[in-house]
Amino acid sequence: LLVTPAQFVRGTLKALKAEITDGKPVVICSKGIEISTGLMMVQVAEEEVPGATIAILTGPTFARESANGLPSAVTIAAKDKDVAQEIRDVLATRALRPYITDDVIGAELGGAIKNVIAIACGMVIGKGLGESARAALLSRGLAEMSRLGSAMGANKDTFSGMCGIGDLVLTATSMQSRNFSFGVAFGEGKTTEQILGSRNAVTEGFYTAEALTTLARNQAVDMPICQAVFDCLSGTKTLDDGIADLLDRPLKNS
Amino acid sequence: LLVTPAQFVRGTLKALKAEITDGKPVVICSKGIEISTGLMMVQVAEEEVPGATIAILTGPTFARESANGLPSAVTIAAKDKDVAQEIRDVLATRALRPYITDDVIGAELGGAIKNVIAIACGMVIGKGLGESARAALLSRGLAEMSRLGSAMGANKDTFSGMCGIGDLVLTATSMQSRNFSFGVAFGEGKTTEQILGSRNAVTEGFYTAEALTTLARNQAVDMPICQAVFDCLSGTKTLDDGIADLLDRPLKNS
Repeated sequence: LLVTPAQFVRGTLKALKAEITDGKPVVICSKGIEISTGLMMVQVAEEEVPGATIAILTGPTFARESANGLPSAVTIAAKDKDVAQEIRDVLATRALRPYITDDVIGAELGGAIKNVIAIACGMVIGKGLGESARAALLSRGLAEMSRLGSAMGANKDTFSGMCGIGDLVLTATSMQSRNFSFGVAFGEGKTTEQILGSRNAVTEGFYTAEALTTLARNQAVDMPICQAVFDCLSGTKTLDDGIADLLDRPLKNS
Repeated sequence: LLVTPAQFVRGTLKALKAEITDGKPVVICSKGIEISTGLMMVQVAEEEVPGATIAILTGPTFARESANGLPSAVTIAAKDKDVAQEIRDVLATRALRPYITDDVIGAELGGAIKNVIAIACGMVIGKGLGESARAALLSRGLAEMSRLGSAMGANKDTFSGMCGIGDLVLTATSMQSRNFSFGVAFGEGKTTEQILGSRNAVTEGFYTAEALTTLARNQAVDMPICQAVFDCLSGTKTLDDGIADLLDRPLKNS
């Protein structure tokens, strides 16, 4: 019964198509990359509602916290910054602080990749490797995000914002995150079937890992952490071997 | 009986002066800014042992985890990158992965500022404002770090590495961190006297907050989070007013 983020976006937009008229902006809140096409959610939306004005809302918020009025900050991205500004005018409150950008690709990539890095961080914690190892992985995960982003035309600075490091930190350090808690359970020795079988919400990073390895290969970008996550989840490698792959890489400059 | 980081560096180097000869590098592991002079630890060291080769070791590691052989990554910075490489050759193991850089200012600033941002993050968690608010604060803390760094000649990319975001994440999310746990206790309503009085190790960020606000003013750089931390710790503002200052700032672009 679970649907992927792309299936959700396609299904929802098909249902709402008649409502989307006259440049009324569509704000996508799903994150991920469609496995079969390699498309990100904005591109998926552009296929479903050609000509529509598409924006995305992303960044570090847990719905439960926002619903309780606790403060948070998000990124609103649209190719036309005026559109992002209009959406901000509608959504901003004292407790919800939106930052705006026209770097749609960067904002989307940040939101998608962070789920995979968060799974990796969960694996490390579940395996008992400690918080220092998690911090190192998170920092190198940000480097992977920047590398793929640069190759795809994103602005590197975008990844220092809410939709990059902000969201990555939240997702990779909290048991409230489905992706992090998935990784923790996997690191503790559960199988993907056992973990996903007990869930009634989508673990986006599980799907994004596969899509990202394909995208990284097509863009000729090195993404060792995302690759290790995919190798472990697909059963190509054991978790111990995936971790060894990362620790045995040659030392780099900063 | 507690000493500040600067007092520790000065005292240690005075005691070791006779040993520091022939370009033997001195690797500083303390982080902070001397309140009375505004000097960072490398500059303090250069005053104590003029002409010596100074490097720093910084980044996201808890001593207990490293001592137990758990994997971690650090930054080694020296003005001459060959010196950093030599130190790496001595220190690197499979579990301790050093990244090297010649951006000494950036590496030092990251290690100092992150302690103050971590106190802010602790305050937010102690006050019950939630993990989303903490992630937003951490991301904006990184922006402050970059702004001051740029003004002082650091390379902005340095803050995306172990000595910037890596160390910030570790310090701002773990109760093992003295700075974060200080902030949590303060957010829960304890006074600085109560918290510091029960500690037998230095809480570096407590001293750095004051030094940083001076440095930011001298450099004409806006550092609202560090300012709010200093205002709250010095008793100039209540925690509620410090938080209000941040939430009432005008909305910015990313």
